[in-house]
Amino acid sequence: MTNQKPGELPGVVLSLDELFALARKALMHHGLSAAHADAIARVITQGQRDECHSHGIYRLLGCVRSVRSGKVDPVAEPTLRDVSPGVLAVDAHYGFSLLAFETGLPVLAEKARTQGLAAMAINRCFHFSALWPEVEAIAAQGLVGLAMNPSHSWVAPAGGTRGVFGTNPIAFAWPREHGHPFVFDFATSAIARGDIELHAREGKPIPDHWAIDSEGKPTTDARAALEGAMQTFGGHKGSALAAMVELLAGALIGDLTSMESQAFDDGAGAAPCHGELVIAIDPRRFLGADYGAGQERAERLFAAVVGQGARLPSQRRFEARERSERDGVRIPQALYDDVMRLFE
Amino acid sequence: MTNQKPGELPGVVLSLDELFALARKALMHHGLSAAHADAIARVITQGQRDECHSHGIYRLLGCVRSVRSGKVDPVAEPTLRDVSPGVLAVDAHYGFSLLAFETGLPVLAEKARTQGLAAMAINRCFHFSALWPEVEAIAAQGLVGLAMNPSHSWVAPAGGTRGVFGTNPIAFAWPREHGHPFVFDFATSAIARGDIELHAREGKPIPDHWAIDSEGKPTTDARAALEGAMQTFGGHKGSALAAMVELLAGALIGDLTSMESQAFDDGAGAAPCHGELVIAIDPRRFLGADYGAGQERAERLFAAVVGQGARLPSQRRFEARERSERDGVRIPQALYDDVMRLFE
Repeated sequence: MTNQKPGELPGVVLSLDELFALARKALMHHGLSAAHADAIARVITQGQRDECHSHGIYRLLGCVRSVRSGKVDPVAEPTLRDVSPGVLAVDAHYGFSLLAFETGLPVLAEKARTQGLAAMAINRCFHFSALWPEVEAIAAQGLVGLAMNPSHSWVAPAGGTRGVFGTNPIAFAWPREHGHPFVFDFATSAIARGDIELHAREGKPIPDHWAIDSEGKPTTDARAALEGAMQTFGGHKGSALAAMVELLAGALIGDLTSMESQAFDDGAGAAPCHGELVIAIDPRRFLGADYGAGQERAERLFAAVVGQGARLPSQRRFEARERSERDGVRIPQALYDDVMRLFE
Repeated sequence: MTNQKPGELPGVVLSLDELFALARKALMHHGLSAAHADAIARVITQGQRDECHSHGIYRLLGCVRSVRSGKVDPVAEPTLRDVSPGVLAVDAHYGFSLLAFETGLPVLAEKARTQGLAAMAINRCFHFSALWPEVEAIAAQGLVGLAMNPSHSWVAPAGGTRGVFGTNPIAFAWPREHGHPFVFDFATSAIARGDIELHAREGKPIPDHWAIDSEGKPTTDARAALEGAMQTFGGHKGSALAAMVELLAGALIGDLTSMESQAFDDGAGAAPCHGELVIAIDPRRFLGADYGAGQERAERLFAAVVGQGARLPSQRRFEARERSERDGVRIPQALYDDVMRLFE
């Protein structure tokens, strides 16, 4: 741990190992089992490392708030159920989702290698993390990953006036032979809810395609947006995808839709409780002897994107990762103080 | 077949059976095998029935043009290969895609029921049809359907200046216990290429988010757009999805990307030749005894959308279907004349 250098903003610089240890300690201080604390601290460290600040150490505060709400079981042990040759279900028993994902991943990967593709339903989990750490973990096994989940019903369907869908992220990773995988992870809402909250706190207007007010009219007033509903990205197409996420990661896996998840929370303000669908696909199984040719084809696609000056998704994140692995991460002083208060 | 009534536009009204017979006859006249003619005529009739005019009888003209280009094998017999317990590959042997889909569907459905989910790769097929008839056929078996394919590289990546991706449609269907399934089918491009061609023909400007000119600048000039590249829908999110389609329905299944498909066509102007990925998921296998509860959950979601005055995707199409099944379909006179000339 080092302190502020001249010309830098106030803050604390931590190595990734120091950050992980701090996060783990804070979580265990609040009653999480070592297994849960490890899984959560790993993902929080990854978020901070990749400069996804809203998914970094800041999330510790929400995690602890969720535990304090009394809804989350901080020591729940996930259990696995073999649903069919291609399908695995992991019951999180109302614990956080990440340990359930880690517990199920080896079985999901094995199924994908045997069957060609496989699905993992994670049920009854509290969810606060991005999906890219999960699809990246799948890609690290040489598999294609696809993941999605509902959240709380803040988002109106295209042409509608009231929230039905969650921010419903979809994440995808393609494993590359060299370097980072091709990864994307985006909300099917026009914007993250946190961005509207931030604009409301700062009294700043929002673009008119982010949200509608409580009467269903597009609004640039962030406070009116929070009382109304968010919009999906991409009009009716984003709205269709958001519905697909409710069906696949809700109805199909016997778990809550975003409307039900919001009702379940009942104003407690915990992380949303719902399910998650994860699909893994084995390109070696699909391609057999043509696996190398398939990878070369993918590389030509990426080269055609990068070669014209466009970016691959996650490119900024991978650049941040390189910096953080070399230099550590800087935690703003106010946030660091908030984290320290978790130990009081 | 009836003729024009007072006050109606010139045209010919056909029952759906008459339309099917006409399409089938035209296709066989141009050398397609009875099996191909049946499969194509069925889907063309469905397109016209649902008032998707660009996927209706109009497509006969493009089909025949593709056959005349000499690239398509009009009598190719699809062959099946069992890749793994969850994966089936259908080689279309450079015939049209629809017979390959029909041939593989029963095996795909059987695999989905046994495994929980299954994938079908269709390879080396010429493709001109919408994907909704295919995912609807999957839903008719009580399964969830997901389908996607590349096309020709008309679409630039977000932040880019040149075409890399195809219009890359994604289609999805959820089987409902009563009535039509929940279905969407959309291009990941901002708009169909045909719409830009139509504006160019009519000399009308296009919205500035549809396309860029050959220098990579947004343009409202339809002709400049056709020489430049189309944009994806929804900015970088649509662009990420378009890349996913290239990877899953190209690289993963050992078939052409949109760039390669365009090179393969080599200016012949045939329907694009590439592959297609189709995934089927069995909700009964996922949900077991909770199947009914899962379906009720989906119905509550649909009710929340429709109950606030928003539409489900495909709702207009299903309304058109009802009209067409009752009243038949009206073919504009000029189009009917073009079809008749196919018999000369």
